Amino acid sequence: MTTPSHAFTAGLIQKACTGDRALNQTSLDAAIRETAAQGARLILLQELHDSLYFCQTEDTERFDLAESIPGPSSQRLAALAAELNIVIVASLFERRAPGLYHNTAVVLDSDGSLAGRYRKMHIPDDPGYYEKFYFTPGDLGFRPIQTSLGKLGVLICWDQWYPEAARLMALAGAEILLYPTAIGWNPADEAPERQRQLDAWITIQRAHAVANGLPLISANRVGFEADPSNRTQGAEFWGHSMICGPQGEILAQAGTDETILTARIDPKRTEDVRRIWPFFRDRRIDAYGPLLTRYDDGC
Amino acid sequence: MTTPSHAFTAGLIQKACTGDRALNQTSLDAAIRETAAQGARLILLQELHDSLYFCQTEDTERFDLAESIPGPSSQRLAALAAELNIVIVASLFERRAPGLYHNTAVVLDSDGSLAGRYRKMHIPDDPGYYEKFYFTPGDLGFRPIQTSLGKLGVLICWDQWYPEAARLMALAGAEILLYPTAIGWNPADEAPERQRQLDAWITIQRAHAVANGLPLISANRVGFEADPSNRTQGAEFWGHSMICGPQGEILAQAGTDETILTARIDPKRTEDVRRIWPFFRDRRIDAYGPLLTRYDDGC
Repeated sequence: MTTPSHAFTAGLIQKACTGDRALNQTSLDAAIRETAAQGARLILLQELHDSLYFCQTEDTERFDLAESIPGPSSQRLAALAAELNIVIVASLFERRAPGLYHNTAVVLDSDGSLAGRYRKMHIPDDPGYYEKFYFTPGDLGFRPIQTSLGKLGVLICWDQWYPEAARLMALAGAEILLYPTAIGWNPADEAPERQRQLDAWITIQRAHAVANGLPLISANRVGFEADPSNRTQGAEFWGHSMICGPQGEILAQAGTDETILTARIDPKRTEDVRRIWPFFRDRRIDAYGPLLTRYDDGC
Repeated sequence: MTTPSHAFTAGLIQKACTGDRALNQTSLDAAIRETAAQGARLILLQELHDSLYFCQTEDTERFDLAESIPGPSSQRLAALAAELNIVIVASLFERRAPGLYHNTAVVLDSDGSLAGRYRKMHIPDDPGYYEKFYFTPGDLGFRPIQTSLGKLGVLICWDQWYPEAARLMALAGAEILLYPTAIGWNPADEAPERQRQLDAWITIQRAHAVANGLPLISANRVGFEADPSNRTQGAEFWGHSMICGPQGEILAQAGTDETILTARIDPKRTEDVRRIWPFFRDRRIDAYGPLLTRYDDGC
């Protein structure tokens, strides 16, 4: 980041998915057109945007959902990006080789080119979120992707709980942080636990904006999706997608319904905020060595 | 951290200071007794707890406020800790040698011993907060301090903006994060900017609790303190001291008045939260190397 880029409107689409992928894509394309019509030059889609969240079970049949990159989905979205003169960030199930898959976000620039991809680095594995079965951890590191709207620090879902990931993107010059996400409540949890989880999720993402003086966009899905294996009570995706400014201030936030959000992103705000809060000036890189270790066992 | 310690009540004291240090100490000692009487076994005091926030100006006379450790203040507080059978965490202006000073927190254990000290690692320097003039950056690293109540991850004020600091304490086995603080509004700032700053400060600390699955206590001062140099409009310390649980949930929070807060800290909650959110399992230590660099200039 040398000089501030221009201000622009960013948007995100928060949707529910059905089991009919073609229908999801048609509905999504319409939402992208609508978001662009509202002035958005950058549009973020939710994680694994055009299918049900298939990681609720470990099922080898689901690898049929994966695509190469470039592939049908990235090409369809690239054409839409070019037609609408927008940048699209979309999370896909990437097939890299037989038996080698990633949870990958592609960035399609406004000329229809594939600006770059980010492969999810932190992979969760919890009851109902069996991602370690499907996705090999990313091997591209934490590199922002250069676009016509600046350098995008794209991260994915579970990454959002790691301050390291946001910091690394910021140190590599990201001008905005983006999180496609699929996170929800376990219907078995009580209301206070649900509230704590949602608050924690909002709080830690806002904090990444604060710590790094960067705007942030997070797009989550909504809707209830049953567990095909019937082992869990399914997932109730909690929405609450948001756009924050570089002090973590919320510029736009959704509830739990399908919606489009837009907000103005002004790189000048990052410049100003980093002058009053010069956190990057004082990092103790001489003393951060143990960040590269698993744990200090004290023995 | 091997097995969870026992639950206990933690407390903090949010106070205004006057120019009369003896008066501040008398008033503080009474507040410590009151907090202990409310059941607190661990008490956190605000940053530079017994004097005005002297860093508003660069003045060599202010080095007279510094003390060696052990010294009069740490010994007075140690005697109180032993008498009340509590652990006290107190921020002091440490004189280490002529011309060598630190912003240091001492931990006095319930037997009156000096359990350890933490020297502030990240030192700010902003108009009205001229800390780089007074304090040499800490050279003890991010090491939790073992006490009868467990391992305390003590950090100080500006440290609270750095996710690295909280993470390093957690990786070294801290069971609770503690932040003595002195932060306030610039009276020249408009209300929306004040609100953004306060929200950011609350948010990032709650996020440290979330990211690390640890309870957190933050004690800030209150009251207006004039700038002796008359170059700024002084500082209006914003209070809002708080105690959070390991999901960042607020257990107790102050406003802008002098107050005592207490809340129950249960290490079992950390155990449970780290099981449902096993962030430590998935850290990509193989890819965190650039955290030890200042910035990626891309050339």
